[in-house]
Amino acid sequence: MKLRAIADSIGARVVGEATVEVNNIASIQSASAGDLVFVEDEKNLQLALGSNASAVIAGEFAGAGPYSKPLLIAGQSRLVFARAAKLLRGNARQQSGIHSTAVVHSSARLAQSVTVGPRAVIEENVEIGEGTFVGAGCVIGGNTKIGRECTLYPNVTIYPGVRISDRVIIHSGAVLGSDGFGYARDESTGRYEKFPQVGRLEIEEDVEIGANSTIDRGALDTTRIGRGSKIDNLVHIGHNCQIGEDVVIAAQTGLSGSITIENNVVLGGQVGIGEHARIEEGVMLGGQGGVLPNKVLRGKGIAFWGTPARPVREYLKQLAALERLAKKK
Amino acid sequence: MKLRAIADSIGARVVGEATVEVNNIASIQSASAGDLVFVEDEKNLQLALGSNASAVIAGEFAGAGPYSKPLLIAGQSRLVFARAAKLLRGNARQQSGIHSTAVVHSSARLAQSVTVGPRAVIEENVEIGEGTFVGAGCVIGGNTKIGRECTLYPNVTIYPGVRISDRVIIHSGAVLGSDGFGYARDESTGRYEKFPQVGRLEIEEDVEIGANSTIDRGALDTTRIGRGSKIDNLVHIGHNCQIGEDVVIAAQTGLSGSITIENNVVLGGQVGIGEHARIEEGVMLGGQGGVLPNKVLRGKGIAFWGTPARPVREYLKQLAALERLAKKK
Amino acid sequence: MKLRAIADSIGARVVGEATVEVNNIASIQSASAGDLVFVEDEKNLQLALGSNASAVIAGEFAGAGPYSKPLLIAGQSRLVFARAAKLLRGNARQQSGIHSTAVVHSSARLAQSVTVGPRAVIEENVEIGEGTFVGAGCVIGGNTKIGRECTLYPNVTIYPGVRISDRVIIHSGAVLGSDGFGYARDESTGRYEKFPQVGRLEIEEDVEIGANSTIDRGALDTTRIGRGSKIDNLVHIGHNCQIGEDVVIAAQTGLSGSITIENNVVLGGQVGIGEHARIEEGVMLGGQGGVLPNKVLRGKGIAFWGTPARPVREYLKQLAALERLAKKK
Repeated sequence: MKLRAIADSIGARVVGEATVEVNNIASIQSASAGDLVFVEDEKNLQLALGSNASAVIAGEFAGAGPYSKPLLIAGQSRLVFARAAKLLRGNARQQSGIHSTAVVHSSARLAQSVTVGPRAVIEENVEIGEGTFVGAGCVIGGNTKIGRECTLYPNVTIYPGVRISDRVIIHSGAVLGSDGFGYARDESTGRYEKFPQVGRLEIEEDVEIGANSTIDRGALDTTRIGRGSKIDNLVHIGHNCQIGEDVVIAAQTGLSGSITIENNVVLGGQVGIGEHARIEEGVMLGGQGGVLPNKVLRGKGIAFWGTPARPVREYLKQLAALERLAKKK
Repeated sequence: MKLRAIADSIGARVVGEATVEVNNIASIQSASAGDLVFVEDEKNLQLALGSNASAVIAGEFAGAGPYSKPLLIAGQSRLVFARAAKLLRGNARQQSGIHSTAVVHSSARLAQSVTVGPRAVIEENVEIGEGTFVGAGCVIGGNTKIGRECTLYPNVTIYPGVRISDRVIIHSGAVLGSDGFGYARDESTGRYEKFPQVGRLEIEEDVEIGANSTIDRGALDTTRIGRGSKIDNLVHIGHNCQIGEDVVIAAQTGLSGSITIENNVVLGGQVGIGEHARIEEGVMLGGQGGVLPNKVLRGKGIAFWGTPARPVREYLKQLAALERLAKKK
Repeated sequence: MKLRAIADSIGARVVGEATVEVNNIASIQSASAGDLVFVEDEKNLQLALGSNASAVIAGEFAGAGPYSKPLLIAGQSRLVFARAAKLLRGNARQQSGIHSTAVVHSSARLAQSVTVGPRAVIEENVEIGEGTFVGAGCVIGGNTKIGRECTLYPNVTIYPGVRISDRVIIHSGAVLGSDGFGYARDESTGRYEKFPQVGRLEIEEDVEIGANSTIDRGALDTTRIGRGSKIDNLVHIGHNCQIGEDVVIAAQTGLSGSITIENNVVLGGQVGIGEHARIEEGVMLGGQGGVLPNKVLRGKGIAFWGTPARPVREYLKQLAALERLAKKK
């Protein structure tokens, strides 16, 4: 693919020879001829120019040249690199229809271009939209509805009645719609009895869910993951949680029940949040941070850290004070 | 189902019209005609009476009425609601026998009413009791014994030789009986060699195990999960652990090896416990709390928190003292 | 098997009757006639001699006897016990070829002695070496290469293009080669777009990976797990991580992206490490410890603890100082 065509498609301008062809992406370290790389600062630009790559995507910091390789210049070089990657690599997956070893219930309604891998199981009344890929060994429970152009990697499990919108990506081993963790204790016997976990799980457009993550259905109401939110591996989201749009949740974070995460929140890895807490719009919470039940964290762009979570500036002061105190003795 | 019949079955008394019929449960927010809801206090009773529900389960705080809807009054309203849910929803699952795509070893002994889903694999000498459901894609290792009326959701993996008692519920992706994490290091080469992990795993009656949780078999002895204990998603239980009865373990908690958890302990989410520690009867340990190897936590009804875990009152004092100290500077 | 033969094979010397036969291993508590047990100190030697075991492996601390049971004496008794176990139990698994329900792509190249369990799926161009066992329900993505004598327990998922060397053990539910967690945010819309996750995952000889752990492929480069490293259950390893040799990572620990873990590091359970951090040769990091992004932990044999991780001695001083401070008020 010629640089000119890429530049036009991703909204960059070419500095240097626009007829150079690239056919793949790479890191600066691993690049070879035909590869396109990207840089976000001047120092890496020099490294990239010295690499084996055929062309470089760079931010507006780059000048008019001349450079030893052609450049694609764009305001957000990382973003346009991601888009160029999509152009160059396309969708490697070939459509292959429904594998002969898949078990698809006769009442399921699959769009024509759906792919179902070997040994996948699709239960009664499931609906799946155009272009969706269901990997080998997936189990899709009855009455689940999955939108268009979704990717379910192998061995995903979806409980009955889940709603999944378009372009959702679900990695292997993820479990969606499992029962929440709710019991009523009989005071006379001390035994726990199962509280009904019969609500729904709804996942909006463009969500990605990492490997071996678990998202429970609502107890009586609905657990919801908002549009564009990205969830890493081994994350737990409990029943009735309401996750907003464009939320980022790093690996191994756990949300107990009935939590509200508003739009544009960023949660680091191994964060733990207690039930009924609310994390408001745009809050950032550092790795291993903890939020007590019923608490509210507030402040667009404010970073919190520690358990219980405090503004990070405050927390660092406390850590420093403790260090001094210990040294005094 | 008429309220009178429900009241008789769950041990409640009716205030108002006992011939009203309900056919499902709901939350107050989502209730529609025909739904039964529950409340635990006066404020929510008013909300419930204003909802679309057809009847309300309430605690003894409710008076003789008259109310705008019929009430079922019981001492533990949440508990009786859970029981009413069971009555109303029954067991939605129809028995379907052994799916033609399941792979059941000829030496396996399955009771007549066992259900085995598509693509499940049941190895040699497995025994499964009446009414048990084995979901699609489950793999049950050889010589495993599973009791009556258990539910294994799809894609559960059970290693050989595990013992599971009656009415156990295992959610998707859980792995039971995997090797513990034990090695002997050769001092001359620095290399780790596998220490034998050949013990057993026994799970008693009425245990529930969450999605993607892992419970290791004993190294030489037995890992045991006691009657009625409830384990949330993504929990790790190491080799040789002894978990008592009616223990509650929230999501992402991890127990390393040879830990004793006595009856009625409650562990919050993301708790970590070191090897050979003992958590005694009735202790509560807050989320993200940590217990060092070989430690003992003691005190029925006492709440601990922090790492290393301290009585929560003490820990809060420490947090407050640190906050004051940091502000002084 | 006679003690003499075992002693010769594992490099121990016999004190007492070398013609005694043993046929299994056990713990002191569970031992019965025919069992071999081991002890690491004098106190346990007395217990072992009083048990039902037929023979005891003991360290050099044991004298010349006479003892009531025959002893095998070796410098590292735990290690030689592990080796004796291997001798006595052998490989219980019988070879069974490729199960008729497995789905093996015609282009896959499997060595003659490979075992493939029921319903396993092996995609195009996969190569598998002699003696490797692929359990029921595993899915091996295209172009993956697996070495000799590996064990993949049931329901493991491997994404395309992963390289796995010899004698690697992978427990059930593990996911290898999944996409890393990387996005580029479009500043104009606030939406996240997927950054390419097209690198590799390489796993060297003698690695063991626990149940439901997840290891992401590199974004553009390679994630690598070094020879002999042991990874427990529910561990997360992000894209581009470089794990050295003989590294031990306990359960539920999480490594975000581009982290370097040098040889002989030991990470406790629930440790969290931020991106681009480096943990140098021989460092030990206690359970729940946290390391900030870009930090370096250094010091062979030095133990760190807490978040942010400090030398454990320093951290304990700080905890003690805080405790005193809180009591003063």
